[in-house]
Amino acid sequence: MPRFKLTIEYDGTEYAGWQRQAGQPSVQQAIEEALAGFSGETATLQAAGRTDAGVHALGQVAHVDLTDTWETGTVRGAVNAHLRPHAIAIIGVEIAPDDFEARFSALRRHYRYRIINRRAPLTVDRYRAWQVARPLDADAMQDAAQVLVGRHDFSTFRSAHCQSRSPVKSVDRIAVTRSGEAITLACTARSFLHNQVRSFVGSLKLVGEEKWSAADLRDALDARDRARCGPVAPPDGLYLVAVDYPD
Amino acid sequence: MPRFKLTIEYDGTEYAGWQRQAGQPSVQQAIEEALAGFSGETATLQAAGRTDAGVHALGQVAHVDLTDTWETGTVRGAVNAHLRPHAIAIIGVEIAPDDFEARFSALRRHYRYRIINRRAPLTVDRYRAWQVARPLDADAMQDAAQVLVGRHDFSTFRSAHCQSRSPVKSVDRIAVTRSGEAITLACTARSFLHNQVRSFVGSLKLVGEEKWSAADLRDALDARDRARCGPVAPPDGLYLVAVDYPD
Repeated sequence: MPRFKLTIEYDGTEYAGWQRQAGQPSVQQAIEEALAGFSGETATLQAAGRTDAGVHALGQVAHVDLTDTWETGTVRGAVNAHLRPHAIAIIGVEIAPDDFEARFSALRRHYRYRIINRRAPLTVDRYRAWQVARPLDADAMQDAAQVLVGRHDFSTFRSAHCQSRSPVKSVDRIAVTRSGEAITLACTARSFLHNQVRSFVGSLKLVGEEKWSAADLRDALDARDRARCGPVAPPDGLYLVAVDYPD
Repeated sequence: MPRFKLTIEYDGTEYAGWQRQAGQPSVQQAIEEALAGFSGETATLQAAGRTDAGVHALGQVAHVDLTDTWETGTVRGAVNAHLRPHAIAIIGVEIAPDDFEARFSALRRHYRYRIINRRAPLTVDRYRAWQVARPLDADAMQDAAQVLVGRHDFSTFRSAHCQSRSPVKSVDRIAVTRSGEAITLACTARSFLHNQVRSFVGSLKLVGEEKWSAADLRDALDARDRARCGPVAPPDGLYLVAVDYPD
């Protein structure tokens, strides 16, 4: 029973998130139905990141066991054909070792958050970025963000619905860069708490607006108090970019 | 009666094009209705480029005469407010000289065409690029494209519906570049024939696939025969990026 590793891209706008939910469209359900449509098999996908409603993926990873030893190219083409007209695509398929777990084997997850910093509403970037009208100081955001790097208790930046056993996580890297009106935050960690990146971005926006200093951000972190988090950024700007595994 | 210069961004997916058409949604109509909604004035916009259905703009320019001397910031904010929920935004407003004509004063128009060169269907780039499955040689496309630069009779690359008096145009620059799976063609000219950029891209795709050589492209140009054009590329990947005017 071969195990397949799928690399998946999707526009999360029309979905209630990755995970199956009764009565709501999910990315997981769409792919499982496409798999069943081509193979006749009822199989369950396990994903590296259970992205929320409206969150996008450029490189989500999931594994699935199928009874037949399909060619990887066949799986990719057939699942994509059955996925139409969903805004979901299988961009890579590999045979994985039997002990590969998309969620638990992951070494690092890379997220990106896109802000468009301008007065005018979004058009081609609508649902694909967060429009922030007030001018943001991206350098100040970058400097302050370094407070969040390293191993910390991130209770402040964790949703009430988070199911992680511990609020302690290790953030490897945060980089905030500006290119014209686009501000991008890149964040890497082995694993994340629920809403952690969107909580970071919501709080860093306050720094960019000069409502918070880097010291205020550090105080919020040290408080380990959800009430101290800035307003959580919307899902539209968040992308699961890639997941790293051992070779 | 002040003349206003508007710089406009839009996602063309849901529109029959820039120009007003009976019974079909157009960008022009949406903005004219928004102008009327805030000012009470019935005014007609004149645009630099009459983009087709599905074509996007990052920097379309139009002019309009209003009887009141509105603050430019008021025009921008009020028109954007009245445009909701259209995927159209006014990104800049200036007072222009009385003899400014968005269409006829333009010195150069800059277009961009985006190809995503991969097997998998598009998700976050759906309606925003052309997905081409067969691997394309972007360097060969770039080399061949230089055949099109300069002053030529572009009858081959002109739609049957083109209303231009002459098929002779001067192309200032074409640059084809690849970044990962994205291939971008940038093209600048004082003015363009109808479907000219999409006709260039459709023919250059044949070069990228090695179905045409640069010499074949030159022969097609020299033939001045619409039947010699490659299949016209879809509108999804085309963006009117900017329009230049005298200082």
